Amino acid sequence: MGSRAGTAGYDMSIVFSPQGKLYQVEYAFKAIKSGGLTSIGIRGKECVVVAGQKKIPDKLIDPSTVTSIYKITDYIGCIETGIVPDAKLHVSRARQDAAAFHHKFGYQIQPNFMAKKVADYAQLSTQHASARPLGVSMILIGIDDDLGPQLFKMDPSGAYFGYKATGAGEKEQEATNFLEKKFKSNPQLTQDETIQLAISTLQNVLGADLKASDIEIGICTMEKRKFTLLTESEIDSQLTKLAERD
Amino acid sequence: MGSRAGTAGYDMSIVFSPQGKLYQVEYAFKAIKSGGLTSIGIRGKECVVVAGQKKIPDKLIDPSTVTSIYKITDYIGCIETGIVPDAKLHVSRARQDAAAFHHKFGYQIQPNFMAKKVADYAQLSTQHASARPLGVSMILIGIDDDLGPQLFKMDPSGAYFGYKATGAGEKEQEATNFLEKKFKSNPQLTQDETIQLAISTLQNVLGADLKASDIEIGICTMEKRKFTLLTESEIDSQLTKLAERD
Amino acid sequence: MGSRAGTAGYDMSIVFSPQGKLYQVEYAFKAIKSGGLTSIGIRGKECVVVAGQKKIPDKLIDPSTVTSIYKITDYIGCIETGIVPDAKLHVSRARQDAAAFHHKFGYQIQPNFMAKKVADYAQLSTQHASARPLGVSMILIGIDDDLGPQLFKMDPSGAYFGYKATGAGEKEQEATNFLEKKFKSNPQLTQDETIQLAISTLQNVLGADLKASDIEIGICTMEKRKFTLLTESEIDSQLTKLAERD
Amino acid sequence: MGSRAGTAGYDMSIVFSPQGKLYQVEYAFKAIKSGGLTSIGIRGKECVVVAGQKKIPDKLIDPSTVTSIYKITDYIGCIETGIVPDAKLHVSRARQDAAAFHHKFGYQIQPNFMAKKVADYAQLSTQHASARPLGVSMILIGIDDDLGPQLFKMDPSGAYFGYKATGAGEKEQEATNFLEKKFKSNPQLTQDETIQLAISTLQNVLGADLKASDIEIGICTMEKRKFTLLTESEIDSQLTKLAERD
Amino acid sequence: MGSRAGTAGYDMSIVFSPQGKLYQVEYAFKAIKSGGLTSIGIRGKECVVVAGQKKIPDKLIDPSTVTSIYKITDYIGCIETGIVPDAKLHVSRARQDAAAFHHKFGYQIQPNFMAKKVADYAQLSTQHASARPLGVSMILIGIDDDLGPQLFKMDPSGAYFGYKATGAGEKEQEATNFLEKKFKSNPQLTQDETIQLAISTLQNVLGADLKASDIEIGICTMEKRKFTLLTESEIDSQLTKLAERD
Amino acid sequence: MGSRAGTAGYDMSIVFSPQGKLYQVEYAFKAIKSGGLTSIGIRGKECVVVAGQKKIPDKLIDPSTVTSIYKITDYIGCIETGIVPDAKLHVSRARQDAAAFHHKFGYQIQPNFMAKKVADYAQLSTQHASARPLGVSMILIGIDDDLGPQLFKMDPSGAYFGYKATGAGEKEQEATNFLEKKFKSNPQLTQDETIQLAISTLQNVLGADLKASDIEIGICTMEKRKFTLLTESEIDSQLTKLAERD
Amino acid sequence: MGSRAGTAGYDMSIVFSPQGKLYQVEYAFKAIKSGGLTSIGIRGKECVVVAGQKKIPDKLIDPSTVTSIYKITDYIGCIETGIVPDAKLHVSRARQDAAAFHHKFGYQIQPNFMAKKVADYAQLSTQHASARPLGVSMILIGIDDDLGPQLFKMDPSGAYFGYKATGAGEKEQEATNFLEKKFKSNPQLTQDETIQLAISTLQNVLGADLKASDIEIGICTMEKRKFTLLTESEIDSQLTKLAERD
Repeated sequence: MGSRAGTAGYDMSIVFSPQGKLYQVEYAFKAIKSGGLTSIGIRGKECVVVAGQKKIPDKLIDPSTVTSIYKITDYIGCIETGIVPDAKLHVSRARQDAAAFHHKFGYQIQPNFMAKKVADYAQLSTQHASARPLGVSMILIGIDDDLGPQLFKMDPSGAYFGYKATGAGEKEQEATNFLEKKFKSNPQLTQDETIQLAISTLQNVLGADLKASDIEIGICTMEKRKFTLLTESEIDSQLTKLAERD
Repeated sequence: MGSRAGTAGYDMSIVFSPQGKLYQVEYAFKAIKSGGLTSIGIRGKECVVVAGQKKIPDKLIDPSTVTSIYKITDYIGCIETGIVPDAKLHVSRARQDAAAFHHKFGYQIQPNFMAKKVADYAQLSTQHASARPLGVSMILIGIDDDLGPQLFKMDPSGAYFGYKATGAGEKEQEATNFLEKKFKSNPQLTQDETIQLAISTLQNVLGADLKASDIEIGICTMEKRKFTLLTESEIDSQLTKLAERD
Repeated sequence: MGSRAGTAGYDMSIVFSPQGKLYQVEYAFKAIKSGGLTSIGIRGKECVVVAGQKKIPDKLIDPSTVTSIYKITDYIGCIETGIVPDAKLHVSRARQDAAAFHHKFGYQIQPNFMAKKVADYAQLSTQHASARPLGVSMILIGIDDDLGPQLFKMDPSGAYFGYKATGAGEKEQEATNFLEKKFKSNPQLTQDETIQLAISTLQNVLGADLKASDIEIGICTMEKRKFTLLTESEIDSQLTKLAERD
Repeated sequence: MGSRAGTAGYDMSIVFSPQGKLYQVEYAFKAIKSGGLTSIGIRGKECVVVAGQKKIPDKLIDPSTVTSIYKITDYIGCIETGIVPDAKLHVSRARQDAAAFHHKFGYQIQPNFMAKKVADYAQLSTQHASARPLGVSMILIGIDDDLGPQLFKMDPSGAYFGYKATGAGEKEQEATNFLEKKFKSNPQLTQDETIQLAISTLQNVLGADLKASDIEIGICTMEKRKFTLLTESEIDSQLTKLAERD
Repeated sequence: MGSRAGTAGYDMSIVFSPQGKLYQVEYAFKAIKSGGLTSIGIRGKECVVVAGQKKIPDKLIDPSTVTSIYKITDYIGCIETGIVPDAKLHVSRARQDAAAFHHKFGYQIQPNFMAKKVADYAQLSTQHASARPLGVSMILIGIDDDLGPQLFKMDPSGAYFGYKATGAGEKEQEATNFLEKKFKSNPQLTQDETIQLAISTLQNVLGADLKASDIEIGICTMEKRKFTLLTESEIDSQLTKLAERD
Repeated sequence: MGSRAGTAGYDMSIVFSPQGKLYQVEYAFKAIKSGGLTSIGIRGKECVVVAGQKKIPDKLIDPSTVTSIYKITDYIGCIETGIVPDAKLHVSRARQDAAAFHHKFGYQIQPNFMAKKVADYAQLSTQHASARPLGVSMILIGIDDDLGPQLFKMDPSGAYFGYKATGAGEKEQEATNFLEKKFKSNPQLTQDETIQLAISTLQNVLGADLKASDIEIGICTMEKRKFTLLTESEIDSQLTKLAERD
Repeated sequence: MGSRAGTAGYDMSIVFSPQGKLYQVEYAFKAIKSGGLTSIGIRGKECVVVAGQKKIPDKLIDPSTVTSIYKITDYIGCIETGIVPDAKLHVSRARQDAAAFHHKFGYQIQPNFMAKKVADYAQLSTQHASARPLGVSMILIGIDDDLGPQLFKMDPSGAYFGYKATGAGEKEQEATNFLEKKFKSNPQLTQDETIQLAISTLQNVLGADLKASDIEIGICTMEKRKFTLLTESEIDSQLTKLAERD
């Protein structure tokens, strides 16, 4: 039982260890990384983008049913990284909250409040023993009526922050390092630059040339406001521009 | 207690192990394989088919009461692989959801939404400690009003994907390998080709010549829309054509 | 604790073992066999029969209060094998379901639906931890309005199948072997042949000459439809015919 | 922990042991025997009798408050053997059920249905973990409108049977052996014979001459139907007749 | 862990041990004795009395707030022996039951029914695991409209009996022995004799001369019916008479 | 695990140990003493007083927010000793009960009934496993309409008594010894004497000269009835008189 | 298991240890310190201030979404130290309570009552086993209508006190020591002095020169009453004045 010696049972349920740690939360982070996928979110000047790998686990799967990018409302979308069924529950609950908000107040839920609601559920599952934390991390994007493009990341601990750019999943650390260098100069990215940076980050951390069919990209722009997915040919044309630029 | 040394109790309930694993879900997959049966689902151009072994566990059993293929609505059917009583509960719940949907919205539930509902129940049983996951895998087929023939597979983890073709159960891996080769060229299968491919996949992975009475086949076609079972003589005539073709 | 080494606690509650097994269900099967009784069900051409041992545990017991055969509705009956009090609960619940069905729909519940309801309760007790499975196996008979004579067997796992003939209890395997030989030629048994085969199966597997008072027999016929018990003198006359035939 | 080696924890709650045993039920039987009292029930031709020891645990106890014989309805009575407070709960519940039956259907509950209700409660406590089984055995008597004198015995497992005669408690086995010999010839006992046999059974198995104050006897007769207790002088006169007979 | 070897965990909750024992009930009896006080109840010809020690645990306590004798209704009183807070709950529940009875039926609850209600609560706590048994024994007195003076004792097992005289607490056995000798001749005690016997029993078993302030006495008489406490001077005058008598 | 050898797990929850002990209650008493404070309550002829140490745990704390003395109603107050947050809950519940009483009956709750209510909550937490006992002891004072000055002490076991004088907390035993000597002659203390005895008891058991700012004192008098706190200058003037008296 | 030897399981749930300790509460304090941040609260003559470190965990995070300072009502604010998601729940509950209070009573909740409500939730989580304590400490400020500037600190034990000045988090002890020296002379700080002392305390205990962007400061003044945050330039100008003063 070597590996348990240090945790001594504090990791079988939601209690503090003598060091003040919540082990089930830490194991949920492991579950996210062990899914083997990496996701990226980047905020441009007038747009905000999520991008991820489209890896079909089995050649016979209908590719149209495999996606990590979900629309929550017409104006808010997200990319989920981690355990797939947990992700679907995560998104379902967010959609219900968004619909309930709209019904109650008569206007659309804003991205920051949506992020707070998602994080609240996660916090509760770290305090009560009745259910395990969800093994999934959500990067959420949208256009705030006042603040413009918004990008949030929520994790199993219930934490959430706004970001200029971020990564999640297996290569989260590598993506973060890559993006930090790019953002040192605080660039004001155009829409094309934002998309291309998302793609090049993925290519860089995965160490592989990606084809349009290996990538999926969701976007919200100040101009259109709506959350949309890029088509495969749109992604392809961005890949071409990216190759030409280098 | 040799075999528990590595799991150390994390597998007795629904919590993450230090590696981020959910053991009860993995054991449910074992239960599916240990049932000893294999099922196949294949999407053709204008039809979609499920096929499975009709293995009577006891010669005295009335063969008409032994089936793995269930009608869920007039337009949606499935084949279940794994623990038989779990399969019946699985199907009962799906039928109730389909009926409730019809009652509430006035039109038939579509295959992809039906698949989502089935998967949602499975996810919940992986997050809460009150009940074990069901030891069963469902391949679901139907004709979508917009998308045409649809084929989904749902497992104990709560995952579900659309497929061109897939297998489940003891020889899932062998069936998948066989089908991948056949689908490399992305064939547009006619109804006869679809049925015959399902039969030849079964024969190939089981390494045995199958008689019409050893097989059961369910089908939905664009033309008729309804989910129906092939009769033993229809299967027999397909077996003959298949033998002639080879 | 030698005998637990292989199960390691997975058998104390309703969870999957690492091999995908549900131990409490397997132990319930043991409880059925350890009751020491054997039951038989046989479907004839125009009738269906259950037969069992009438073994009075104590000479002072009023024999009329000892029976394993129960009427569920006027048209459906069963023989129960295993823990006696569990059997009584099993039958009570079936009667209530049958009455509720009749009240709700205005016609009698059919044998196959009755069998499904009984099996559903068993499945639930294998999935939830709140109660143990019932240690009892039910062979149910009745005349289906469309399908004629019907014979089902339900066990603690929640499985149920239709049968031509079957056994349950301590000598289940021996009875099944004996009956398989007799049914190889797919005989169309008359009422007398059906009853006599039930009796001779019991005599064969128990290796004993049975008297009329040692046996109890329930029957449904196409002609009368009602579920009735043979009187001791009717059984006696069948024993005589059987002796003459040999 | 020697004595647990064979049960390995299966006896701490209501689950099957690997041998299909329910240990808590077996321990409840031990609790009945360890109460140190023995009870008798005997069915005569036109009457039915329960008899037991009236052992005052403490000389200062008001003897009128010590009894094992309880009236359930005007027409049904019983003798309880085992844990005294459990017996009182047992009787209270039976009285409530009898009263509810009378209120609902307008006629008196019959002895066999009363016996079934008492046994049903016991079965439930062997299936669910929320409460232990009651450590008490009930011998119930009454006159059935159709069947005449009736005698049932219910135990912690939920089993119940009708009897010609039976015993319960510490000397249950000895009483049963004694009564079996007496009933070999299937005697049609008069009221006096029935009462005297009950007394002589007690005297025989306890190996002691009993005084009228050491015995309590309840009776139902075809003539009077009501359940009544014999007075001490009635018992005394039976003791005299019994002594004269020998 | 020497002292647990024989109980092996059966004493941590409400289950039967393999010997049919309920350990938590036995430990509750220990709790009663370890309180260090002894109580007496005696039934005279036309009165009934409870008496106990008035031992002030701390010299600074206001003696008027220390009592083991409680009025339940105007006509029924009791003395409690064991854990003091448990005693107060015991009495509160009895008072509520008595008030509810009066409200519902319009007349006073009789002593024997009051005793039954108190015992019922105790039985329940020995069958269900949700709460420990109360560590207290109640001697209850009152005048029954039909039966005259009544004396009952209820203990943690849920048992209750009527008594001519009894003791409870640390010196229960000694008090019982002493009283048995006095009651051999079945004396018809006058009111003074009853009170004086209660006092002399206490003095005898405690081996100490008691002062009026060391004793408390409650009484119900046929004449007055009401439950009253003797004043210190009334006790003193009884002590004087007792001293003169010797 | 040396120190657990004697308790063997009986102290992890609310069950009796084999010796009839409730360990969680005993540990709660330890928690009270380990708080490091001592409180005093003294009943004078026409007044009643509580006094305690005002020890500011941290020099930066606003002293006005540190107190162990709480008003419950205008006429009843108390001093709490033990775990501070438990004390606040204790007081909140008492205030709610007092307000509910007033609302329901239209007059003020009397001190003895208030004490009973507080003790009732404590008893419940010693019988049920759902919550730990509160680690706090309350000395409650007030003027009873009939009985004059009243002083009660309630502890985690649910016990409560009236007192002439008492102590609680770390030096409870020393305070009790000191007060017993002073009360041997049953003094009828004036208001000044009562206050000064409270102060001198604290000084004596703490072995330290106390300043007015180290002490807090609450009082109820027959004259004013209301519960009030002495001001620092009132305490100072009592300290001066006390010094002069010596 | 070295480090558990002394706690022996008492730290896995909310029960008292034999020494009267509540371990989960102590571990929650560890969780607060291990967050690595330090917060300060200081009460001036006519204002009250909270200050903390603004440490962006990741350079890509949008700094405007990282804060430890929260507005609860227009008039009350706080700084939270410890587990971030716990802090957000803490604040949410406080806001709801404040809104409910305003709705119910028609005026604003006062700082001391707000502090009591926050502490009440914490106490409950130390008494019941259903949820762990929150790993967060709140310093709350506001202007009381009667008492002027108020400063409270609440911790996981449910304790709360008013303070002149205090610290929380990793360097709590160092901050307290530093502030105690400054407050020895009981200074009446002006608004500028209060803010500057908060900043210099942070600089002193962190041993680092802080830039305006490393600090966040919230304030309530008698003049404006509202809780506001200082802008980065306001903090910068205070830093300049502080540097000039030295």
